[in-house]
Amino acid sequence: MNHGYDFPRQIQFANQEEKQEFSKFPTKTGRRSLSRSISQSSTDSYSSAASYTDSSDDETSPREKTQVNSKGSSDFCVKNIKQAEFGRREIEIAEQDMSALISLRKRAQGEKPLAGAKVVGCTHITAQTAVLIETLVALGAQCRWTACNIYSTQNEVAAALAESGVSVFAWKGESEDDFWWCIDRCVNVEGWQANMILDDGGDLTHWVYKKYPSVFKKVRGIVEESVTGVHRLYQLSKAGKLCVPAMNVNDSVTKQKFDNLYCCRESILDGLKRTTDVMFGGKQVVVCGYGEVGKGCCSALKALGAIVCVTEIDPICALQACMDGFKVVKLNEVVRQMDMVITCTGNKNVVTREYLDRMKNGCIVCNMGHSNTEIDVASLRTPELTWERVRSQVDHVIWPDGKRVILLAEGRLLNLSCSTVPSFVLSITATTQALALIELYNAPEGRYKQDVYLLPKKMDEYVASLHLPNFDAHLTELSDEQAKYMGLNKNGPFKPNYYRY
Amino acid sequence: MNHGYDFPRQIQFANQEEKQEFSKFPTKTGRRSLSRSISQSSTDSYSSAASYTDSSDDETSPREKTQVNSKGSSDFCVKNIKQAEFGRREIEIAEQDMSALISLRKRAQGEKPLAGAKVVGCTHITAQTAVLIETLVALGAQCRWTACNIYSTQNEVAAALAESGVSVFAWKGESEDDFWWCIDRCVNVEGWQANMILDDGGDLTHWVYKKYPSVFKKVRGIVEESVTGVHRLYQLSKAGKLCVPAMNVNDSVTKQKFDNLYCCRESILDGLKRTTDVMFGGKQVVVCGYGEVGKGCCSALKALGAIVCVTEIDPICALQACMDGFKVVKLNEVVRQMDMVITCTGNKNVVTREYLDRMKNGCIVCNMGHSNTEIDVASLRTPELTWERVRSQVDHVIWPDGKRVILLAEGRLLNLSCSTVPSFVLSITATTQALALIELYNAPEGRYKQDVYLLPKKMDEYVASLHLPNFDAHLTELSDEQAKYMGLNKNGPFKPNYYRY
Amino acid sequence: MNHGYDFPRQIQFANQEEKQEFSKFPTKTGRRSLSRSISQSSTDSYSSAASYTDSSDDETSPREKTQVNSKGSSDFCVKNIKQAEFGRREIEIAEQDMSALISLRKRAQGEKPLAGAKVVGCTHITAQTAVLIETLVALGAQCRWTACNIYSTQNEVAAALAESGVSVFAWKGESEDDFWWCIDRCVNVEGWQANMILDDGGDLTHWVYKKYPSVFKKVRGIVEESVTGVHRLYQLSKAGKLCVPAMNVNDSVTKQKFDNLYCCRESILDGLKRTTDVMFGGKQVVVCGYGEVGKGCCSALKALGAIVCVTEIDPICALQACMDGFKVVKLNEVVRQMDMVITCTGNKNVVTREYLDRMKNGCIVCNMGHSNTEIDVASLRTPELTWERVRSQVDHVIWPDGKRVILLAEGRLLNLSCSTVPSFVLSITATTQALALIELYNAPEGRYKQDVYLLPKKMDEYVASLHLPNFDAHLTELSDEQAKYMGLNKNGPFKPNYYRY
Amino acid sequence: MNHGYDFPRQIQFANQEEKQEFSKFPTKTGRRSLSRSISQSSTDSYSSAASYTDSSDDETSPREKTQVNSKGSSDFCVKNIKQAEFGRREIEIAEQDMSALISLRKRAQGEKPLAGAKVVGCTHITAQTAVLIETLVALGAQCRWTACNIYSTQNEVAAALAESGVSVFAWKGESEDDFWWCIDRCVNVEGWQANMILDDGGDLTHWVYKKYPSVFKKVRGIVEESVTGVHRLYQLSKAGKLCVPAMNVNDSVTKQKFDNLYCCRESILDGLKRTTDVMFGGKQVVVCGYGEVGKGCCSALKALGAIVCVTEIDPICALQACMDGFKVVKLNEVVRQMDMVITCTGNKNVVTREYLDRMKNGCIVCNMGHSNTEIDVASLRTPELTWERVRSQVDHVIWPDGKRVILLAEGRLLNLSCSTVPSFVLSITATTQALALIELYNAPEGRYKQDVYLLPKKMDEYVASLHLPNFDAHLTELSDEQAKYMGLNKNGPFKPNYYRY
Repeated sequence: MNHGYDFPRQIQFANQEEKQEFSKFPTKTGRRSLSRSISQSSTDSYSSAASYTDSSDDETSPREKTQVNSKGSSDFCVKNIKQAEFGRREIEIAEQDMSALISLRKRAQGEKPLAGAKVVGCTHITAQTAVLIETLVALGAQCRWTACNIYSTQNEVAAALAESGVSVFAWKGESEDDFWWCIDRCVNVEGWQANMILDDGGDLTHWVYKKYPSVFKKVRGIVEESVTGVHRLYQLSKAGKLCVPAMNVNDSVTKQKFDNLYCCRESILDGLKRTTDVMFGGKQVVVCGYGEVGKGCCSALKALGAIVCVTEIDPICALQACMDGFKVVKLNEVVRQMDMVITCTGNKNVVTREYLDRMKNGCIVCNMGHSNTEIDVASLRTPELTWERVRSQVDHVIWPDGKRVILLAEGRLLNLSCSTVPSFVLSITATTQALALIELYNAPEGRYKQDVYLLPKKMDEYVASLHLPNFDAHLTELSDEQAKYMGLNKNGPFKPNYYRY
Repeated sequence: MNHGYDFPRQIQFANQEEKQEFSKFPTKTGRRSLSRSISQSSTDSYSSAASYTDSSDDETSPREKTQVNSKGSSDFCVKNIKQAEFGRREIEIAEQDMSALISLRKRAQGEKPLAGAKVVGCTHITAQTAVLIETLVALGAQCRWTACNIYSTQNEVAAALAESGVSVFAWKGESEDDFWWCIDRCVNVEGWQANMILDDGGDLTHWVYKKYPSVFKKVRGIVEESVTGVHRLYQLSKAGKLCVPAMNVNDSVTKQKFDNLYCCRESILDGLKRTTDVMFGGKQVVVCGYGEVGKGCCSALKALGAIVCVTEIDPICALQACMDGFKVVKLNEVVRQMDMVITCTGNKNVVTREYLDRMKNGCIVCNMGHSNTEIDVASLRTPELTWERVRSQVDHVIWPDGKRVILLAEGRLLNLSCSTVPSFVLSITATTQALALIELYNAPEGRYKQDVYLLPKKMDEYVASLHLPNFDAHLTELSDEQAKYMGLNKNGPFKPNYYRY
Repeated sequence: MNHGYDFPRQIQFANQEEKQEFSKFPTKTGRRSLSRSISQSSTDSYSSAASYTDSSDDETSPREKTQVNSKGSSDFCVKNIKQAEFGRREIEIAEQDMSALISLRKRAQGEKPLAGAKVVGCTHITAQTAVLIETLVALGAQCRWTACNIYSTQNEVAAALAESGVSVFAWKGESEDDFWWCIDRCVNVEGWQANMILDDGGDLTHWVYKKYPSVFKKVRGIVEESVTGVHRLYQLSKAGKLCVPAMNVNDSVTKQKFDNLYCCRESILDGLKRTTDVMFGGKQVVVCGYGEVGKGCCSALKALGAIVCVTEIDPICALQACMDGFKVVKLNEVVRQMDMVITCTGNKNVVTREYLDRMKNGCIVCNMGHSNTEIDVASLRTPELTWERVRSQVDHVIWPDGKRVILLAEGRLLNLSCSTVPSFVLSITATTQALALIELYNAPEGRYKQDVYLLPKKMDEYVASLHLPNFDAHLTELSDEQAKYMGLNKNGPFKPNYYRY
Repeated sequence: MNHGYDFPRQIQFANQEEKQEFSKFPTKTGRRSLSRSISQSSTDSYSSAASYTDSSDDETSPREKTQVNSKGSSDFCVKNIKQAEFGRREIEIAEQDMSALISLRKRAQGEKPLAGAKVVGCTHITAQTAVLIETLVALGAQCRWTACNIYSTQNEVAAALAESGVSVFAWKGESEDDFWWCIDRCVNVEGWQANMILDDGGDLTHWVYKKYPSVFKKVRGIVEESVTGVHRLYQLSKAGKLCVPAMNVNDSVTKQKFDNLYCCRESILDGLKRTTDVMFGGKQVVVCGYGEVGKGCCSALKALGAIVCVTEIDPICALQACMDGFKVVKLNEVVRQMDMVITCTGNKNVVTREYLDRMKNGCIVCNMGHSNTEIDVASLRTPELTWERVRSQVDHVIWPDGKRVILLAEGRLLNLSCSTVPSFVLSITATTQALALIELYNAPEGRYKQDVYLLPKKMDEYVASLHLPNFDAHLTELSDEQAKYMGLNKNGPFKPNYYRY
C-alpha cells in the first residue's frame, strides 16, 4: 500500500535505534504501537479494555459495512453501532469521575464558547475521551474524531458516540491502512472544513499539514497532548513551517504532576501486585532515576515497607533523594542484593545484560520510565536463556543455573501495560485540552503567533480549581489588602512562571 | 454412604443468625463456603486460581474415574492425573517464595523428625500447601490429604501430589457429598492408621472424632489453623471431650501479625484497585475498627494520600488512632462526606441501611473484617434499589434519585475475594504448621495434656528466624554476659508471654 | 532516728555491676540519681525544671527554718513558702494539659471515693504530680507527700502544695540524710496513720515495711509506678513478705504505649536537636533494639528522611523491622558508615569500645533505652582519648588521629537528660495512679490478695477514655445486638487479656 | 561622615505598613533587625549564640579600643581579640559539617581562582561564614568583612578571623551608627579597592553605590543572598542604574529547597518543642499556605501523628495538598477546633483578631512564613487582653474568660527565633556564594551584562555534587551512548531551566 508520502516516518523515529527496533516487530502491529508507547498519559485503554465484552466473532472490516444510527446518519465508521447502549453506560460511569468537565459544561454552556468551532480530533477513543468530546459539543463545537492508536479503541464507546451524532471513525484492531483511511475520512469532507485540531501524537496534524495545506493554513489552533507530538511541533516551528499557533498541553503543571508523581505513586504498586502478587514489606528495591516518576515510586514503596535505594545522574535530584531518606548508589554496587529493579530514567540501556546476569534468583525487573528502551531486553534473547511466560505480561527468564529473573511487560511501560490510569487523572488531561481549545479559539488576534505555547498559568490554575470540588476542598480568597500587599490579582495567576511547585 | 448424621452443624453455626443466613444460599454451594469465610488466612486460592487453565470440559466425576499414577498407584482421587506436570511447575514456583520450608527440610532432613508420623490433613490444596505436604514427607511423614473447601482446590497441584505418591482426595467443585467422601477416604484405610491430624476448619477433626473414636484416641496431636476450628476445639475441651493435645496455630504472634497487619496493609490497596481503579490521593475514607486489620488499612491509605478517619468502640484503640494521626469519629458524623467506607471490626451490622442511605454518590463500601456480617447487605435488597453488576465483584446499588453506592464483593471479605495472599504470608503459616506437628509428635510424655495449646514462644521465634534470610536480615547474638544480665537463654525465648509486639 | 541501716541497698542494686558503678559516683550525688535513672516514666523534672527561676542564694537548709503557711500550719518542710504563688500558676498551667484528672475530679467528686483514705506518697514533686495530689484531695483523701528524687523537686510547686494544706516534705538538692528524714516525716506523725501508699521507686514502701511494720500491715494497698519499685515488690511477694495488695501501674497498656512508643517517637528528635542541632535528612542511623522504644525512634527518624537500620536479637522483632522497612544488620557490619548510633535494648554493653573505635568522625552516640549501661562509656575514659565538653550534655571524645565521637548525656538516657516529657504523657500516668488508688481502696474484701496485680483492663480502658476528649475523639457505642454478637459487655472490657494492641 | 542620608529606607521599606511598624521598635534595636527578619537563610546566629560565653562586662565600645593581633596588625575592629582561640575552635567544629567548602578549597587551591580578587563582604559573622571567608582566602582572595546584622555577630569568631589576618569590623550589639561605620571601614581603605561584593541584605551594595560610585563602577560582580537584597538589585536594574553584573544566589534550586522544604520540615518540630514541649501525636493543626515551607511543615507534623489541614489561595497548591492527604479548608471553618495554627503564606494578616478570638483555650499560634506580618499581633495589644510571658519567646495571651492563646516569638519567624539552622544548610548557602564569586570573577568578558542573573544550572548542580559525599551518595555517570540519546553533556547540566524538581 502506498500512501505516497513518507514524512511521518522521518519525523517520528527520533533516532536510528528506534527505527531498527521497529523493523523487528511483526508488520501487523505496525508502527503505531511503537510510536504511541512514548506517551505515558494516553495509555489508559489497554487494561481497562479488558473488562469489555467485545464480540470478536465478526470478522468483517467496518470499512465494508454499511451502518446507520437511529437518526439516519451514516457519517461514521465503527465496529458495530448496536453496541451503543453498552458504550453509553460506560460514558455515564466515566462522567461520574470527571465532574470537572461536567462543571465546565455548565459554566460555559450559556455562552457556547466553541460555537462555530469545527474540531477534528485524534485521540484514544475511550469512555473518558468520549466525555471530553461530548463536552466540546455541549460548548458549541462540531466534532469529527478518529483514533490515535490502532488497538486502544473501545468499540462500544465509539458506537455510542456515533449514535449520538459525532462522526467517529475508529475501531479496535485497525490495520495501518485503516488508520490513515480513518484520519482522512475525518478531514476530507464535503462542505465542512476543520478550524481546530486536537491531537495526541501528531499524526493527524501531519496528515492535514501534508495533504491539506490549505486547510492547515486556516486552522485557528492546534492542541497537542503527547511528548512525541509536542516534539514534532517544536521541530516544525524550528524549521519555520508552523503557520498556526499550537498549545503544548503536555507540559502544564497540573497535568505533569498528575501524570507523573501522583499517578505513578499508585500505579507502581498496582502494576507490581497485579502481575506478581509480590509482598512489598521488607523487599529491597532499587529505583533508577529520581525525577517525578521515581519520586512517586519511591514514596509508595517506602510507605509500604520496602527498603528503597536510588540511582541518579543529576546531583540535585540525588541530593533530594538523600534528604527524602533514600541511599544513592550505583546500580553495580547493589544489583546482587535487590528483590526488584525499577527504571524511571527516560534513558536507554539503564539495565544491561551485565546487570541482569548479576541479579539474584527471583528478582523482578520492570520499567516505569520511557518507551521500552530502559531495560536491554534484546540482550536477553540469547540461546542460553529460557523464556517462560507464567502469566500475561510476566516472563521468567531462566539462566542455565536455574536462576529466574521476572521480567514484566517485556520491558515496556509497566503502568501502561499492567495497571490502569484513574479517570481522575484523565479528567485533568481532558479538562486541560478543552480549556486550551477554548483559549486558542477565542484568543484575540495577535495573542498567539505561529509558535508553540505552554498553557497560560492562569488556565492551569483554572484546571486545578475545577477539580477541587472532587475533594471538597475550599479555597481561600485573598482580601483586597492582601492582594495588594502580594502584588497579585485576586483571581490569579498566583505564582511566577519559574515557580517550582 | 450415609452422611445422615448432623453433628458438625450443631457445632459449626456459632449462632442463630449464621444458621439463617446459611439457609438463603443455594444448596449447591453448601455450607462449606459459608463456614470457611470466617478464616482469613486460608483464602488464597480464590484469586490465584484465576491463572489456571483448568479445562472444565470434562464433566465426569472424579469418583467415577479410574486413574493410576506413573508408579502404578491409584490410592488417590483427583480431577485429572495428566495435569501433574503443570502442577509440578506451579509447586516449584511456590517453593521459591517459601524458602523457610525448604530450609526446614534441609535442617531437619538428617534426623527425620517425623519418621513414623502418619499425618492426615485437610487444608486448601494449592501450590503452597503442596510445598508444606512435601516438606512433611521429606521429614519422614506419611501423608493422606483432602481439601477443606469445595471450591479452592487447584486440580493441577492435586494431580502433581498424587503423581509424587501422596494420597490426595480433592478436586475443584466438589459436592457436599463428595466433600465428606474425600475426608472419609483419607481416614478410613486398610492397614494405615493416622496418628497426627493437620486441620483447617475442624471438619476432619470432627469426622475422626465422631466416626472413628478409636482412631481419635490414639492420635498424638492435632494442629488446627483456623479461627473456626480453634473455636470448636476449645468447645470440645470445655466439654471435657478433647482426649488429645491440640495446637492452636492461629494465634501465634508471627502468623497473627502477618495475616492481619502486614497482609491487610497491602491487600486493602490491591483489592480496591483491582475492583475500582480508584485513585487514593485526596480521598476521604472512614475505617471502622482500629485493630490490627484497621491499623494496616489506615497506614496504607494514609501513606498514599487518603484522608482517613476511624471509628472505634475500644478507648485504648481509639487513643492509638489519635496518636497515629487519625481523627476518631462516629460513623453518622462523617458518612455523608466519605468517598470510601471500610469495615474492619469483626462485628455485625456496622454499616446499616441508615448509613448507606446517607452516603454520597460514588461512595465505595467494602469489608476487610469478618465474614459477611459487617455491612448489612440484606437491607439493600429492596425493590426501590436497583443493583447493577459492573464488573466481577463490583455492584452499583442505585437509589431512586440516581445515587450509586459501589459495593464490593457483596459485602464479603475484600481481601479474600478481590486480592491475593502473597506466598510469603502463606509460608509463615505453613512453617508454623510444620513446626507444630514436629513439636507435638516429638514432645516427651506429659509436656502436653488433653488441652488446646498456643505455639510455644520459642517456636514462634523459630518460625520468624526461618524467614529472616528472605530479607537478608542478620540477627545479633547475645554475649554470655549480656544473656546473664538480661536473665535470658541465648537461644530464646526472648520475651515474656505477655509481651505486646 | 538512725539512717544507718542499709536494707534498701541490698534490694535496690539488681546486680554486682550496678553496685560497682555506683561507687564511682561522687558521694554528693548519692545513690538516688542512680536508682531513679531506671524509671523512664518519672523523669520529667530534669529538663522542665530548667525554666524555673529558683533563687539558689539562700543556703540555709529547709530543715533549720521555721515556716508557716497562710492558714497557720507548719506541718510541712519546703525551700520557701513564699514561692507558693509562682508554683500555683505552674500548677494551673499543668492542669490545662491534664484535663483527664480534672474530669475525674468532677465525675467522682460527689461520691468522694477516697473519703477516709490517708495516702502517703513519694513521687517527683512537679506541677504535674501536684495536679495528681490535689485530685486525690478533691476525691476525699488526706495526703502527706515526699520526693522520690533528691534533685527533681520544683520548689515553687512544693511551696504551693504546702500553702494549700498538703503536708509536703521536699526540696531541690536534698542530701541523702534529708531524703530519708523527709520520708520519715511523712509517715511518722502523731495521730495519723497512713492506709494507702503511692510510691515511685519503692523507697517509701521499704521504709514503712522496715521501720513501721505495724503500719505496713494495716495498709489497704500500694500503688507503684516504677520498674524498680515493681521489681522490688515482686521480690517481696516471692519471698512471701508482701502482706498487702499492690498494684503495678507501670505495666498498664496505656502507660506503656505512651511512655515508650509515642513518647520516644518525639523525644528522640527533640533530644538530638537540642543537643546537636543535627539535620536528620539523609543521615545514616542504626537503632539497636526494635522494641517499643526502638519502634518509636525508627518511625520518627525515617519520617524525617534518615536512612535507618536496626539490630535485634529477637527474630520476631527483627521480622517486624523488615516489614516496617528497616534493614536488620549486625552492628559491626554498619558501624563504620553510621552518622548516629542509638541504643534502645535494655541491655548492657551494646556499644563497646571496639565499636566506638570504628565509628567515623562526627558520629553521634546516644542511649534511649535503659539506665546508663548500654554504651560502655567507662571504656572511653582512657588516657589516649580526650574529652571535650562542647555543650551541656554533649561531649566530644577525641581519638589520637583527631576523630571525634559525639557522646550525648555521657551515655545516660537521652530522653531523660535532654528532652522533656509532655504533660499529656504524665497525665496518663497520674490518672492511672489515681484510679489504681481508688480501686484498691474501695475493692471488696477478697478481690485482691497479698500479691502484685496489674491494673484491671477495664480501668486501663477508663484511663484511655478520660483522655479522648483532648483529641475531640468520639467513641462509638455497641448496640445491644452487637454486644451480644461479640459476647461483650457494652461498657467493656473490650479485649481479652492477651490482646496485643 | 554623614549617616544622615536616607536612601536605603526608601528602598527597604516595601510599603507604608512596614514603615509604621518600624517606628514602634525602640531606637536602640534600629531598623536592622526589622529588615533582616525577611531573610530566612541568614538567621542561624540567634540561637546557637546561646552557647557562647561572651563576657558582656566590658562596656567599652570596640571603636574606642586599640587592639593588635599576634602578627602586629590592627586593621580590624572586634569586641576582644583575646577571644580568638575560643572562636578558632568554633570554626574548626563548623568545618566538620561544611566539608563541601573544604573540598572546594582542595579542588581549587592549586589554581587559585580568586587570585587578585578583592572581596568586600557583609554577612552574619558566625563560625559558618568564617569557614566561607577563609575558603575565599584559600582560593586567593583578599577579604574585608563586616556584619549585616547588629546582633548576630559571634564575637569570638570575629576575633579569630581578625587574628588570622582578615580585616573584620563587627561586634555583637552595634548601634546603627556603628553599623554604617563598620561598612565604611571595610570599603574606604587607602591603597585597596574592592573588585567584588558579597552581600546579604543589600546594605553594603547600597553604601558603595551611593558613597563610592567610582568604586562601584569598577566592581566585577555582586553576589547577593537575601530576598531583600535581591529585590533591591532588581529595582536598581529596572531603573537602569545597575552598572555591574549581579548574581541572585537566593533563588538557586539547591538553596531554595534546603532553606525552605528540608530545613522547615525539621525546624517546625524543633521550634515547637523547644518553646512549648507540646506532644504532636493527635494534635489538630492547620497550616496556612502549602508552598515549600508549608509542605515541609505538613509533612513533618503528619509524620509525627498530628492531624493536619491546610488553607490555600492557589488552586494548584491546593490540589497538591489534597493529593498529599491534607484536607483543604478555610480558616474560619476549622479555627475553633485547632490545637495549633501555623502560618507559611508570605502574606499579611492571615491570622486576624477575628480568628484569634475564636481559637480554643491552649491553642498555639506561630509563624513560619515571612517577616512578622502574617499574624496580626498588634490586634492583640488591647486592654482587655492580658499578656503573660511564660518562657523566652512564649507569651500567653489571656482573654477575659480565662482562655489562653499561646503566641510564639510574638508572631515573628519561629524558625528564626526558636530553633537553629543546621550547619549543613548553611554549607549549601556558603558554597553557592563561593561558586558565584568564582564564576563572576572569572567569567569571560560579555558573558554577564549589567543585570541580575540566576546561578547557572551547572553550578547549582556542582553545589549539590559537593554535598553528596556527606551522605556517602554515589552518582551514576552517563555513558557516551546514553548522553547522546538524551542529548546531554555528560557533565551536565542535566535538566532544562524550567524543570520543576
